[in-house]
Amino acid sequence: MSDTILSQFTSYLQAKSLGKLPANLYTPVDYILEIGGKRFRPVLLLLAHGLFNDKVDQALPAALAMEVFHNFTLLHDDIMDEAPLRRGRETVHHKFGLNAGILSGDVMMIKAFELLLESPVSSEIKENIIRLFALTGRQVCEGQQLDMDFEQREDVQLSEYLQMIEWKTAVLIAASLEIGAQLGGAGKADATHLYEFGRNMGLAFQVQDDLLDTFGDPEKFGKRPGGDILQNKKTFLILRGLELAAPSERQALQNLYFRPSLDEQQKIEAVRDWFSRLGVQEQAQAAQQQYQEAAFAHLDAVQAPEAKKRKLANLAESLIIRDV
Amino acid sequence: MSDTILSQFTSYLQAKSLGKLPANLYTPVDYILEIGGKRFRPVLLLLAHGLFNDKVDQALPAALAMEVFHNFTLLHDDIMDEAPLRRGRETVHHKFGLNAGILSGDVMMIKAFELLLESPVSSEIKENIIRLFALTGRQVCEGQQLDMDFEQREDVQLSEYLQMIEWKTAVLIAASLEIGAQLGGAGKADATHLYEFGRNMGLAFQVQDDLLDTFGDPEKFGKRPGGDILQNKKTFLILRGLELAAPSERQALQNLYFRPSLDEQQKIEAVRDWFSRLGVQEQAQAAQQQYQEAAFAHLDAVQAPEAKKRKLANLAESLIIRDV
Repeated sequence: MSDTILSQFTSYLQAKSLGKLPANLYTPVDYILEIGGKRFRPVLLLLAHGLFNDKVDQALPAALAMEVFHNFTLLHDDIMDEAPLRRGRETVHHKFGLNAGILSGDVMMIKAFELLLESPVSSEIKENIIRLFALTGRQVCEGQQLDMDFEQREDVQLSEYLQMIEWKTAVLIAASLEIGAQLGGAGKADATHLYEFGRNMGLAFQVQDDLLDTFGDPEKFGKRPGGDILQNKKTFLILRGLELAAPSERQALQNLYFRPSLDEQQKIEAVRDWFSRLGVQEQAQAAQQQYQEAAFAHLDAVQAPEAKKRKLANLAESLIIRDV
Repeated sequence: MSDTILSQFTSYLQAKSLGKLPANLYTPVDYILEIGGKRFRPVLLLLAHGLFNDKVDQALPAALAMEVFHNFTLLHDDIMDEAPLRRGRETVHHKFGLNAGILSGDVMMIKAFELLLESPVSSEIKENIIRLFALTGRQVCEGQQLDMDFEQREDVQLSEYLQMIEWKTAVLIAASLEIGAQLGGAGKADATHLYEFGRNMGLAFQVQDDLLDTFGDPEKFGKRPGGDILQNKKTFLILRGLELAAPSERQALQNLYFRPSLDEQQKIEAVRDWFSRLGVQEQAQAAQQQYQEAAFAHLDAVQAPEAKKRKLANLAESLIIRDV
């Protein structure tokens, strides 16, 4: 089960120090890594590795590399987004200052490369995984830039949005799976299928996030829906809505969404009315469904024991919310 | 001559794009790389490579990697130091904003790894150079953290200062030389001698910088001396001075330097008087000389044609100022 994998990863993380001195550099690193999170990327890496190889230990440094890289992006993104809180705790730059947020983030990114190099595999495989990791890291930066660019634009197209979420979140999930597979000894075809499994799951989760934020049941998710609408955020929903709207009504929806004159609750309801009339929710559900199906088709195609693939499928399915 | 090498590097840099889109991510990258600088690290890498290998082309991506990494550190350091200007031009975060300074820096660091991977050498050599590069990058972060820590402390020891300048500046010069050597096919012993040549030269240059700032001839360097003294900066000079001062007079020197009550010119003169009395200038000159001698001893030990080693020696000597 992926619970065992998670606890193996957690033990490894706790035992492993990324560095001690200078303390002002590494204390923020320990702080952000201890705050936790789902450890989704390392677990995926270890499960993908486990499809081909029983020696979990061999993949632990690379699993930690993905978690460290992900947390590096959180440190820098939180500065760029001016976020005071992360997972209910103070963000690093709020607690330790801007310079700590920048420099501790930098050292985490470098440390991720060093962790990958700890993997006990041939230089050829190391070269492959470092090449994929660096490409992925660059795409994550490009996705973050697009995300920031989009805040300044009203003419964002749905296709651009999909590119942004692919780079900002899906490729790191995909790379975690492919790196796990490569470390485990998978062939190129299987490694690519796992990459595509992750990329499509990442896209599905992101569309689901957009759906939940607007249509989620507050009793189930403990969160009042409509946050994205109130922040005028570009999401799958509004961008698809603007595509679906007749040319004559597009400006009205744009004005309502980006230059609202209503109070908060009125704006949420008015936008949801538009979405209902245009069939946006159903289209987003269909898109999510398509990504999921593509993901599972790639997983099916992987040449590995079904029982082991089932763990990856179960983990992915546990994150799928069926009723939005 | 290293001029030819420099122009080969410059042509390569101009022809090579690090990325185009998103434009807001890559425009600051082009901007900082175009501002220029001495291109010291890439030239050293190419000269070290040339000791063992005539195919300059093979080392150009790695040479650019060192320049890109160095410029990444400038972007982030300028934010941390709140510097408005760099080489007489606006710093990236001043011109393009904080987020650009952070994110364009991040993508440069990742791009440096990708450039190293472009080197046409075996996976084993790539693994070696990436391992050294990552270690060096981490040390540069640690050195920058120590530098910031020292601003908040009055009890910095000279040995700590030497560790800081080693990590913050000397190791990247050292790694440039060793990476060039490894790409050129050097054996381990020669690669290590070139690393040590660079590390010792880096330390010598830094001590020289400290000397020039306090004792440099303003007519020669176009700069009024005493900047470090006025900024209460921890340098080789003041830290050695505090070591040399009798316990009974140490507090007086500390007060003068860190809590000055004199006007600017008076402080500069009073500190220089202390330095003269304590023999600080001579001791710094001796330290610089020792580092230089160690550097050249390592260069001498490299098994390569003397004529080619001469180019490296000439470049190093051209940066040595004999009369401070």
